[in-house]
Amino acid sequence: MRIEHDFLGEIELPSEVYYGVQTKRAVENFPITGHKLDKEFIVALAIVKKAAAKANMTTGRMPTNIGAAIVQACAEIISGKWHDQFVVDAIQGGAGTSMNMNANEVIANRALEILGHNKGEYNIVSPNNHVNMAQSTNDVIPTSIRIATIKKANRLIQELTMLSDSLTRKSEEFSDILKMGRTHLQDAVPITLGQEFAAYSAGVKRAAKRVQRAMQNLSAINMGATAVGTGLNAEPEYIEEVVRQISWLTDETFISATNLVDATQNTDELAEFSSALKVSALSLSKMANDLRLMASGPKCGFNEIILPAMQPGSSIMPGKVNPVIPEMVNQVAFQVIGNDQAISLAVEAGQFELNVMEPVIAYNLFNSLTILTNAVNILNHRCVMNIGANDIRCQQLVNDSIGIVTALLPHIGYEEASLIAKEAINTSRPVKEIVKAKGLIPAEQLEVILSPGEMTKPGIAGKKYLNNDKLDIA
Amino acid sequence: MRIEHDFLGEIELPSEVYYGVQTKRAVENFPITGHKLDKEFIVALAIVKKAAAKANMTTGRMPTNIGAAIVQACAEIISGKWHDQFVVDAIQGGAGTSMNMNANEVIANRALEILGHNKGEYNIVSPNNHVNMAQSTNDVIPTSIRIATIKKANRLIQELTMLSDSLTRKSEEFSDILKMGRTHLQDAVPITLGQEFAAYSAGVKRAAKRVQRAMQNLSAINMGATAVGTGLNAEPEYIEEVVRQISWLTDETFISATNLVDATQNTDELAEFSSALKVSALSLSKMANDLRLMASGPKCGFNEIILPAMQPGSSIMPGKVNPVIPEMVNQVAFQVIGNDQAISLAVEAGQFELNVMEPVIAYNLFNSLTILTNAVNILNHRCVMNIGANDIRCQQLVNDSIGIVTALLPHIGYEEASLIAKEAINTSRPVKEIVKAKGLIPAEQLEVILSPGEMTKPGIAGKKYLNNDKLDIA
Amino acid sequence: MRIEHDFLGEIELPSEVYYGVQTKRAVENFPITGHKLDKEFIVALAIVKKAAAKANMTTGRMPTNIGAAIVQACAEIISGKWHDQFVVDAIQGGAGTSMNMNANEVIANRALEILGHNKGEYNIVSPNNHVNMAQSTNDVIPTSIRIATIKKANRLIQELTMLSDSLTRKSEEFSDILKMGRTHLQDAVPITLGQEFAAYSAGVKRAAKRVQRAMQNLSAINMGATAVGTGLNAEPEYIEEVVRQISWLTDETFISATNLVDATQNTDELAEFSSALKVSALSLSKMANDLRLMASGPKCGFNEIILPAMQPGSSIMPGKVNPVIPEMVNQVAFQVIGNDQAISLAVEAGQFELNVMEPVIAYNLFNSLTILTNAVNILNHRCVMNIGANDIRCQQLVNDSIGIVTALLPHIGYEEASLIAKEAINTSRPVKEIVKAKGLIPAEQLEVILSPGEMTKPGIAGKKYLNNDKLDIA
Amino acid sequence: MRIEHDFLGEIELPSEVYYGVQTKRAVENFPITGHKLDKEFIVALAIVKKAAAKANMTTGRMPTNIGAAIVQACAEIISGKWHDQFVVDAIQGGAGTSMNMNANEVIANRALEILGHNKGEYNIVSPNNHVNMAQSTNDVIPTSIRIATIKKANRLIQELTMLSDSLTRKSEEFSDILKMGRTHLQDAVPITLGQEFAAYSAGVKRAAKRVQRAMQNLSAINMGATAVGTGLNAEPEYIEEVVRQISWLTDETFISATNLVDATQNTDELAEFSSALKVSALSLSKMANDLRLMASGPKCGFNEIILPAMQPGSSIMPGKVNPVIPEMVNQVAFQVIGNDQAISLAVEAGQFELNVMEPVIAYNLFNSLTILTNAVNILNHRCVMNIGANDIRCQQLVNDSIGIVTALLPHIGYEEASLIAKEAINTSRPVKEIVKAKGLIPAEQLEVILSPGEMTKPGIAGKKYLNNDKLDIA
Repeated sequence: MRIEHDFLGEIELPSEVYYGVQTKRAVENFPITGHKLDKEFIVALAIVKKAAAKANMTTGRMPTNIGAAIVQACAEIISGKWHDQFVVDAIQGGAGTSMNMNANEVIANRALEILGHNKGEYNIVSPNNHVNMAQSTNDVIPTSIRIATIKKANRLIQELTMLSDSLTRKSEEFSDILKMGRTHLQDAVPITLGQEFAAYSAGVKRAAKRVQRAMQNLSAINMGATAVGTGLNAEPEYIEEVVRQISWLTDETFISATNLVDATQNTDELAEFSSALKVSALSLSKMANDLRLMASGPKCGFNEIILPAMQPGSSIMPGKVNPVIPEMVNQVAFQVIGNDQAISLAVEAGQFELNVMEPVIAYNLFNSLTILTNAVNILNHRCVMNIGANDIRCQQLVNDSIGIVTALLPHIGYEEASLIAKEAINTSRPVKEIVKAKGLIPAEQLEVILSPGEMTKPGIAGKKYLNNDKLDIA
Repeated sequence: MRIEHDFLGEIELPSEVYYGVQTKRAVENFPITGHKLDKEFIVALAIVKKAAAKANMTTGRMPTNIGAAIVQACAEIISGKWHDQFVVDAIQGGAGTSMNMNANEVIANRALEILGHNKGEYNIVSPNNHVNMAQSTNDVIPTSIRIATIKKANRLIQELTMLSDSLTRKSEEFSDILKMGRTHLQDAVPITLGQEFAAYSAGVKRAAKRVQRAMQNLSAINMGATAVGTGLNAEPEYIEEVVRQISWLTDETFISATNLVDATQNTDELAEFSSALKVSALSLSKMANDLRLMASGPKCGFNEIILPAMQPGSSIMPGKVNPVIPEMVNQVAFQVIGNDQAISLAVEAGQFELNVMEPVIAYNLFNSLTILTNAVNILNHRCVMNIGANDIRCQQLVNDSIGIVTALLPHIGYEEASLIAKEAINTSRPVKEIVKAKGLIPAEQLEVILSPGEMTKPGIAGKKYLNNDKLDIA
Repeated sequence: MRIEHDFLGEIELPSEVYYGVQTKRAVENFPITGHKLDKEFIVALAIVKKAAAKANMTTGRMPTNIGAAIVQACAEIISGKWHDQFVVDAIQGGAGTSMNMNANEVIANRALEILGHNKGEYNIVSPNNHVNMAQSTNDVIPTSIRIATIKKANRLIQELTMLSDSLTRKSEEFSDILKMGRTHLQDAVPITLGQEFAAYSAGVKRAAKRVQRAMQNLSAINMGATAVGTGLNAEPEYIEEVVRQISWLTDETFISATNLVDATQNTDELAEFSSALKVSALSLSKMANDLRLMASGPKCGFNEIILPAMQPGSSIMPGKVNPVIPEMVNQVAFQVIGNDQAISLAVEAGQFELNVMEPVIAYNLFNSLTILTNAVNILNHRCVMNIGANDIRCQQLVNDSIGIVTALLPHIGYEEASLIAKEAINTSRPVKEIVKAKGLIPAEQLEVILSPGEMTKPGIAGKKYLNNDKLDIA
Repeated sequence: MRIEHDFLGEIELPSEVYYGVQTKRAVENFPITGHKLDKEFIVALAIVKKAAAKANMTTGRMPTNIGAAIVQACAEIISGKWHDQFVVDAIQGGAGTSMNMNANEVIANRALEILGHNKGEYNIVSPNNHVNMAQSTNDVIPTSIRIATIKKANRLIQELTMLSDSLTRKSEEFSDILKMGRTHLQDAVPITLGQEFAAYSAGVKRAAKRVQRAMQNLSAINMGATAVGTGLNAEPEYIEEVVRQISWLTDETFISATNLVDATQNTDELAEFSSALKVSALSLSKMANDLRLMASGPKCGFNEIILPAMQPGSSIMPGKVNPVIPEMVNQVAFQVIGNDQAISLAVEAGQFELNVMEPVIAYNLFNSLTILTNAVNILNHRCVMNIGANDIRCQQLVNDSIGIVTALLPHIGYEEASLIAKEAINTSRPVKEIVKAKGLIPAEQLEVILSPGEMTKPGIAGKKYLNNDKLDIA
């Protein structure tokens, strides 16, 4: 047991813990979600503290031995140690002061240990004076959020890119599988399964680019802003150096925000980043819906593709397999959309020189990144990569459909096409068969016109067979 | 190590774990949030399983010895044991099949142990045939969600009620503290601080009632619906009995849903319940904003109330204390609103006989209940109960204000009142002083008219002094 | 041309217009949406003004001749006249002061006309002193919103009830049509189309009740609250009488809010009402999705029901008909959900004694009510009432499905059932045929077991044929 | 009266109307919002039709005389004529087919008139065959939405830029006005009012850039995609030419989407654009909140700035002026956020080759653009441009504050500073006075240290006076 104090009084702490009095108060004040800080956020805090210590050593303000101990303590946290000492709740009042102080206290106490002192001897290494030197919660937290977001976003972008690649490979595999295109869930005109997967791939690739683009805005950080962005008590040389150190430690390019007051109070770029995640989630959810629809069946649905079976689907119906992976993707998308809502509200609630709602912004941002990254990875490896096409079924539906008559319009005219369509509906005989029976188009020409290669590209299907002046209006 | 299999093949499991093959597959399929099931949800699942076992024993379908072992295993879980064996992720595809099977497997294996068998001997006690007897994921999960929600909602209602009570006590304590009422953030007419706290109390009490009301819709459960709500393979006597057992085990009144097909596919009542939480969060957030505004200062703000200091507010400014508890309440409110959004999307996404998005609904519902309950408790104990009034400041602001002239309208007329208002603005002299100087109203009458008791109740302030025909139009 | 002034100066107005200087300023300040006030809102404002004039005459404060003229002017507006004189934008700052003043000015000028005076002679009939007597924007607007909401909600409830009735009629019409039930979009076990429509009906009926329930909270109004809810300058007799008059004029029961301060500053009940609309929209959207899925085809989809053709669906494909009515319902649902979001944000933004965001709350509330009422009406008359069942297709899908094997479990056991399921999948032969060929169940028994009446009710299908001890575990 | 027919039958139309049978059906099917199409959307439809007619003339498919008449009819619509003939509701089923047909019919009938024929003689000029030649609703509507969005977005960007410029001018005007910076609504350290306005300006400029960036994604259009994106019946030369024509007619650079299937089914870029509006709305709302807070008073609030008085604020309190313009901005922001929610839901609801929810997407997108543009314009001209600073009050609050002691830390050390802070709180004497009285810092040095120029820039305030080794840790 050791005793620490702040200006509100004394408090008892178990002697083995590295956090201190302010962390303890925060734990008592905020028993809210039961969720701790994201691992990458803890690492980002340590990166900021290490960078600041180095910058303060460069400007000569930080005593060398203390600085070295702080740097070592931070390095340990960056490498994955002491994360269990970050015990504050993810949602908290105070704009993240408790997160910042949790980091300051753990680092100070670990630095004391490294220097051969006891935990709590803050007169030697102080959480505030040394670890937090030239910093404020109001620059440390926004900066750490950006560092962690970029780290996590890079992984998401990677997963999105790999998913897009898998979809492209599938689109090549399925390039010859003709199937009915659907609009309004109604039979339209033919398309290839490959074209559909290429469209999914394009949507996912666009998602990756969107996240990348939104991420770029996060490279401007506000270290040196101190309390309200004016930089009171932060020397310009320090500001320059701390940003350089952070870039070096993260292997990313960070720059000092042009306007530190703006960068301290405004969080719109975090909302913008979250929106990029939301929009990407919308695309993924749309695709997941399509996959579930195409896999519907096996007997009473569309049954055009076969999703890999990942787990038994029912305790009551033997052999039932459900599209559990796409269903999970839908739910993750809903969560990301909900999280974006929470972030939007928090961003709007900033007042004057600070947005004190940053903890809930960070919580939702990291949560969205984590679950979206996981979902995309699983969707890729446990679903998309092993999707099979039911080519026989696809072809049969095309043959049964009325919609292919659209490809014949330029060859036989609108009137004739309408009559064939009507006959096909009334008799349930395939369009192809009726056309053949009527001898309207020679059989071998018909095969060409109705082939995937012709029907699914811009232009008139079977144009080479076109009689002059028969070119119909459509 | 033991080996289990399902129709997708064999899988290895550590011999000490109680969950089985289907749980294992789910863990591999859904490494999404890293969050496990809510404790109350686990208990609710065990309650359902216990009730079903008892009902199946009553109808004679369940062998007695097996039934007894299942009942004991469930009782252990209800008492808090084996929760670490519930390892599936909170967000998952499959409509909760994996949650249901996790429960089925843990209970089966624990029952096997109780009966002196080895884990995995499912030919003796089967997760599907025995533990899940006459059930389907599609009735177990919706029912368990309702049970857990009601349990958690009761705690929230209790906390809201206690907060409302505290606010009422504060309203009595502050009943004589006259302060300026504000509309549009502009000085309006006087009100008492007590009246403001009474309004907060009313809002919070209404929130409690709202949650209570929405909770009542959740007492209709769909046990016996089996796969699609038609009740295939579930005998009517079983249905009756299982609902009775659940009521008995939970000490709540549950009834069988009138239309089991409806109750199996529709989740609108969960959305309605979540909306009740959302609306309550709106009220709490509004109040938190008011508290933060009234506590703004200490020198450059409204400074009308003093919030208890819970933790140091800044590392750079000595003695700064921030309204961290209300700030936390705002953030919890934002989260609850975001969660409600996710739930709304999931509820809309139901298709045909089932809403497969129930896991994400449950996840957000439980999360909202947990954080709202915690936030209300903390707000009450660590803020509201110890709020102090800055009565001198409040009175001074009233004295300085122009708005009190409104109370004089009936006595001196609109024209005279306007002149006094103008003079007060131009000279910065208090309205009271000007009126006195002009001798418009005798001093002792003025004191009565401008007293809290007169100005803050319906009617004309100081009506007894009113000259006939002076009653102004307002 | 006439000239009016307020304390900001003079302004010119066309001599024919009934609105005045403050309305004109508002028109210039808020050229935002281009949408005017909802018709019912204008009527509600006139009801409030009429009730207040009568109450003020009762208490003797309002001169009789002026009161009578105001009452007549209001009656004209209630009957539909002068609505074109309400020219302020629906979204405006000032908490609705401009709406209130628009009403005050139009009524004052019309009353002047009635009394034989010129418009603008406010020394005779004053918008503020007479029309607005004993009122404030802060009680007039919240009250008028409630009156209009209840009026509009009654129509919605009526439409929902009629839709629910139509769905019930359809459920009776379709009570014998057996079809496959679907969970996860995968074939599950049989259900009747009638059961599905009964579930839709139940959901819609619940929506009607939900709206009704939320509406009840709106009957408490805050007339007499004046500026901040304290009732300064509003006599208790007036308060009682104005509420009585409003009840009488609307044919609804309104009561005076228990706590006028609370009722003036808090708008949570409007958010709660909007949430009731949102949740109802979720149910409608889910049903619209099901209808679109069941109507998918005609050749390559589920094709289980036929929606009435309302308009040609495509310019390029002859005869294509799209499910345009359900698609419209989905979009209306999305809009209502979005509107609810806007309302939630506005409700949270209240500060101290007033929520100045009431105009945007009212705008979205009325918009949601209007479009939801219209959508439900159209859905009923132009879709649901004329939905046809494709009974042959439904039966054929059931016959082809594997899922019906579930009904045989109690008769032939799980093992045998699994073998049949496997054979049905591999050979594409119907389950029924295989069972018959194997002679496992006599043909006539099989017909009974697989009949709608048996398979779609709780209990064992064909229980009377059950061999002892064959009762399988499911 | 004239009679028209489609494959659902005949219908009567007033002879003077230019729309036809399909428009009429749509009007009957969708009496939903009462809102017609946005003016810019009508113009965009006409631009697309004109461009298509020209492209079809280039490829030789369109007869020259008919093409010329269509081009003239479109030109008239672009110039503002015939907009009253666009009578379909903004929310409609059918993916916009009714909007497209409304345009096709009006243009066909006007072209017929131009050619000297009667309206309805579709055998001469056909809405489908001629006006819609080589087009589908599925490429016309997405393209028209993009054209109109870009047109409207340009105006918004212009307004945002002008607002940002005004804020910059204000920041220069206020560059010497020292005031208290606030974090957590608590007094922090000094800042200039100019710095605050510069931060607002930066946020608004970023909003303009964000909208610009999101707009760029909209330049890829899918003309030639026809029904499902495969381009069936659309010749490549036509596709190239129609895009060129659209660019020429709009004076914007449009390109053909790389993947037409993707571009026809996915609407994520519209969601992304809407999100850009939402995030910009968040920044504007935050600024509006700050303005309202700083203008709070006049006697009982912050009272640091004076907003121009735009209209009387109250009927009951003489001279009350409310911050009605910022309040309007808040509400517009809430609406834009709600609209974004509706758009998100609609984007997610796309299925297979088309998103049939595009009408509700367009409706909300155009609505958001309109109200945001109007709000920004009004905010600029009727508020920001004429904001005045209450410099005396600002300075007085700084003098009274404890926070300025932070600037003294490096000069007198943390211990001494804390003592002064405590004394200032206890005695209510200004910090400056206490320091002077104690003779800790010479008076003229104190003036320099506490000057705006020193306290509000990065670094140590009054560094030149710093004693060696006194440099405190902060």
